[in-house]
Amino acid sequence: MNELLFSSGTSYEYPLIIKKILTSALRYAPARTICYRDGLTYTYTTLEDRIKRLAGTLSALGVKKGDVVGMVDYNSHRFLESYFAVPMMGAVLATFNWRQGIDEFGHTISHAAPRVLIVHEDFLCLLKKVKDSLEHVDHLVLITETDHPEEPLFSFTGEYEDLLAQAPPGYEFEDFDENTPATLYYTSGTTGLPKGVSFTHRQIVLQTLSLGLTLGSYSSKIRFSSKDVFMPLVPMWKEHAWGLPYLATMLGAQQVYTGKFEMECMLHLFTKYRITFSVCVPTALHMILEHPYAKELDLSSCKLIVTGARLSEKLAKIALSRGLQVTSAFGLSEACPLVSMTHLKGDLDGRTTKKKIEVLASAGLPAPLVDVEIAETSGHLKKTDNLSQGQVIIRSPWLAREYHRDPKKTMNLWKHGWLYTGDLGFIDKDGYIHVTDRVRNVSKSGGEWVSHLKIENLVRKYPGVKDAAVVAVPDEVWGERPAVFVVIDDAHGATVDSVQIEKFMHSFVRTGDLPKYALPDRYLIVDEIPKTEVQKIDVREIMERYGDLLFSAG
Amino acid sequence: MNELLFSSGTSYEYPLIIKKILTSALRYAPARTICYRDGLTYTYTTLEDRIKRLAGTLSALGVKKGDVVGMVDYNSHRFLESYFAVPMMGAVLATFNWRQGIDEFGHTISHAAPRVLIVHEDFLCLLKKVKDSLEHVDHLVLITETDHPEEPLFSFTGEYEDLLAQAPPGYEFEDFDENTPATLYYTSGTTGLPKGVSFTHRQIVLQTLSLGLTLGSYSSKIRFSSKDVFMPLVPMWKEHAWGLPYLATMLGAQQVYTGKFEMECMLHLFTKYRITFSVCVPTALHMILEHPYAKELDLSSCKLIVTGARLSEKLAKIALSRGLQVTSAFGLSEACPLVSMTHLKGDLDGRTTKKKIEVLASAGLPAPLVDVEIAETSGHLKKTDNLSQGQVIIRSPWLAREYHRDPKKTMNLWKHGWLYTGDLGFIDKDGYIHVTDRVRNVSKSGGEWVSHLKIENLVRKYPGVKDAAVVAVPDEVWGERPAVFVVIDDAHGATVDSVQIEKFMHSFVRTGDLPKYALPDRYLIVDEIPKTEVQKIDVREIMERYGDLLFSAG
Repeated sequence: MNELLFSSGTSYEYPLIIKKILTSALRYAPARTICYRDGLTYTYTTLEDRIKRLAGTLSALGVKKGDVVGMVDYNSHRFLESYFAVPMMGAVLATFNWRQGIDEFGHTISHAAPRVLIVHEDFLCLLKKVKDSLEHVDHLVLITETDHPEEPLFSFTGEYEDLLAQAPPGYEFEDFDENTPATLYYTSGTTGLPKGVSFTHRQIVLQTLSLGLTLGSYSSKIRFSSKDVFMPLVPMWKEHAWGLPYLATMLGAQQVYTGKFEMECMLHLFTKYRITFSVCVPTALHMILEHPYAKELDLSSCKLIVTGARLSEKLAKIALSRGLQVTSAFGLSEACPLVSMTHLKGDLDGRTTKKKIEVLASAGLPAPLVDVEIAETSGHLKKTDNLSQGQVIIRSPWLAREYHRDPKKTMNLWKHGWLYTGDLGFIDKDGYIHVTDRVRNVSKSGGEWVSHLKIENLVRKYPGVKDAAVVAVPDEVWGERPAVFVVIDDAHGATVDSVQIEKFMHSFVRTGDLPKYALPDRYLIVDEIPKTEVQKIDVREIMERYGDLLFSAG
Repeated sequence: MNELLFSSGTSYEYPLIIKKILTSALRYAPARTICYRDGLTYTYTTLEDRIKRLAGTLSALGVKKGDVVGMVDYNSHRFLESYFAVPMMGAVLATFNWRQGIDEFGHTISHAAPRVLIVHEDFLCLLKKVKDSLEHVDHLVLITETDHPEEPLFSFTGEYEDLLAQAPPGYEFEDFDENTPATLYYTSGTTGLPKGVSFTHRQIVLQTLSLGLTLGSYSSKIRFSSKDVFMPLVPMWKEHAWGLPYLATMLGAQQVYTGKFEMECMLHLFTKYRITFSVCVPTALHMILEHPYAKELDLSSCKLIVTGARLSEKLAKIALSRGLQVTSAFGLSEACPLVSMTHLKGDLDGRTTKKKIEVLASAGLPAPLVDVEIAETSGHLKKTDNLSQGQVIIRSPWLAREYHRDPKKTMNLWKHGWLYTGDLGFIDKDGYIHVTDRVRNVSKSGGEWVSHLKIENLVRKYPGVKDAAVVAVPDEVWGERPAVFVVIDDAHGATVDSVQIEKFMHSFVRTGDLPKYALPDRYLIVDEIPKTEVQKIDVREIMERYGDLLFSAG
């Protein structure tokens, strides 16, 4: 016991480490449950036992403080276990997006350099394609859910459940410095390859506390309490699923994980477990509300955080009419991700539904300990008047200090002691943040960034394409969708049409070079791409000149 | 602007400082109000302006980082202003108990050594008696609320409101290390003189976050949200009034301060402002419920934290029958003071009212980030079985690191890396802490510690008193009350009776040597005081031998 190291009169300097979040849950709700899909259910007491066994397993595999452990899985109880076990041993949990392009997937694994990689069997084909990226991996741990798994393509150290069963129980988690890195995930690049962001124990603990306060202490209908049944519909490899699994665990709330996302199964879990709290992107909300089976669901006891993209007023209206309590949350990967939520202030209570929906469609009010300001677009000096549009800049205790091993890109992230979000917007007189545009040339489709530069470069590979420009088009379901404007050279002229280019682009999805969500669904051939004086694509001029063409092509 | 000091790529290391708590409020509720007694009302925007003016005033008086500023006032908006202005300049706010004995009052001022002392006119008589303790005080600032104040007994630098009016607005609060001391208060000694405990910015910010979560995110009826109207009934010189003014400010809740505590005025404020959230000791709750005027009050929308002493089951029952939602909170001065609260867990919902009242009368469940264990009474090793009685030991990020300038007493506070509370108790199988007894020989009357040793020493001064022993007797109103057992020597015998001793003890209250609440109300003459083998007073044997005498004398 480390207690023996303390002399009388010496105080315990309590570190803000993830271990301390788990303690609350075990005291408050040892018998509350964690559920996985339609079958598995176990208690928080078992969760603790399994976290200790996972740490024991990893320790036996040689994982030490500072080592990286990677996770490639669907949303699951296993993912939750890794959220605690890996950081609590002082190692870093790296989570990987298996939906991105194959180059990006390989790059993130190679860049994170995990010593142990835990992979669900469904992603083995993907892993095979990026075999060269596994150079640092000493041990592969397989997650299998089928009785007769296929012949593994790799040499595995063991199966997840087998290893946990064999592990000695009672792993002792030591204290350490709260500034120890805990997690690492990648944000799909707006230009170039994905960038890594890492968060420390202190950052995650503080974000958990602030998130809890934002969802518990304001006069919002979206209250998250220990009584709720929580099921996230955003992926756990991204932004710690909005930090909510950490909060749900701290409060000892019941948690449900979907496994492979299948609409019917998910809706079934909604009913079976009487889910009362969830988080999803607007696209998912739209799909839920439109699904025939969902029409029979009673959503009136369910509270939903909508994030990843702006909630349209139309969608907010439909959700409210179905009795679903929705709030929007604004965050970014670099911010762990909490920035703000759309609480309706007490003094807006009397206002009209129209005003309420306006608020819901805003980016909301900053969470406790988050400072938000608007900087001049020139980027040189911070502005004092937040009412005019500029770049949204933030400070909080849980912002990424840098892009992982990328000092050059970090230079654009942190300026004048503020994190530059890349979002343009303003703050209204009631204090609500409004995001109106963005600095970089990207679309956000279903919560994922789509790099226009990448699409343009691929389109330009097609014989006869002289120039290409991608713009973001507002979309009710996806938030935004990329559309491509193409100029054909004189030599090819009428021999190239948009259908050929579309087919060509599909081929990149098949090879894994382009994620499916990044595939443009509009291809428009034009005479010229308007450029600015410095030869950048002039999006405003494009829309002015060709906007009608775009909307009539729908 | 300090922003200019940051080079590109350099992140802002967000410190947990009190300034950041105020930011949330100003953004969320600039127009929400702070009220004082029946007259003054101003907005959070004005609060910020006055905080800056107070800091400007103190700065002009020479207060620098690390200097101590003292406050002797009733609960007031001024006290709230000092909670922020003084720590936010990097100075230390020392708060003084004007209800304690004059020696203790003088000692605490002398020991804290404030450079500036802000004093309400009602306490000038008190201050006159401890003039020698003001050696370090460079400036006295007077608070006056009367139109024609009496001739001041001291040379004052100025009057509080005058100085604020003259101060330049717009004081700029700089960032600094979160481990900078912010406050200092004294805990009425269980033996000897009061002991000082100091808390840093980090400690106060973290306690505010945890307190908010405890009161917002659990399935308790006692929810504190931004919509509440808050009025504390515990003094602001003690334990930051349970840290609630910091939380209320962070959430932007309306706040009401009573000034000089007068029952009728307080009950009037309850109605006038529709108070929905308060905190008091059981004694005050008893007085409120018994007051004729209160019988007409609708208390059903009011939530109340009862602290400072155990809430008796009888009192809990009466409160519940009146529709008042009560919860008990367990804390101690050394713990800033939050340890635990009596949330009713979800899985106890179905239980009987009897069980619910049992829970309310316990010390509750630890707040997030608080670890509670039971140590063997021997004090040598921590126990693993919490179900048997032992000493309650705690860890949290906001515990006093030491007794201020008293390393010797600190030796008994911190052992084996745990803070030893001096309370005996156990933790039941549902996780609730139960405090059953205490290690030291003290009573807790109306939330205040009463030292038995001090009373015994005073009683022994009376001619003919051979021996004396004080015991704590359970009391419905006060929690506990001290009772004295006295042995008269043979030479005096029948010439000394209990009435004489009682009169003698009253004289110490008049001279300020004994606070009124420490005056025993039972004096029993006995033949012998039973002692243990090591010649300590054997309280158990006293109660066994003379218990009947005590209760029949009521």
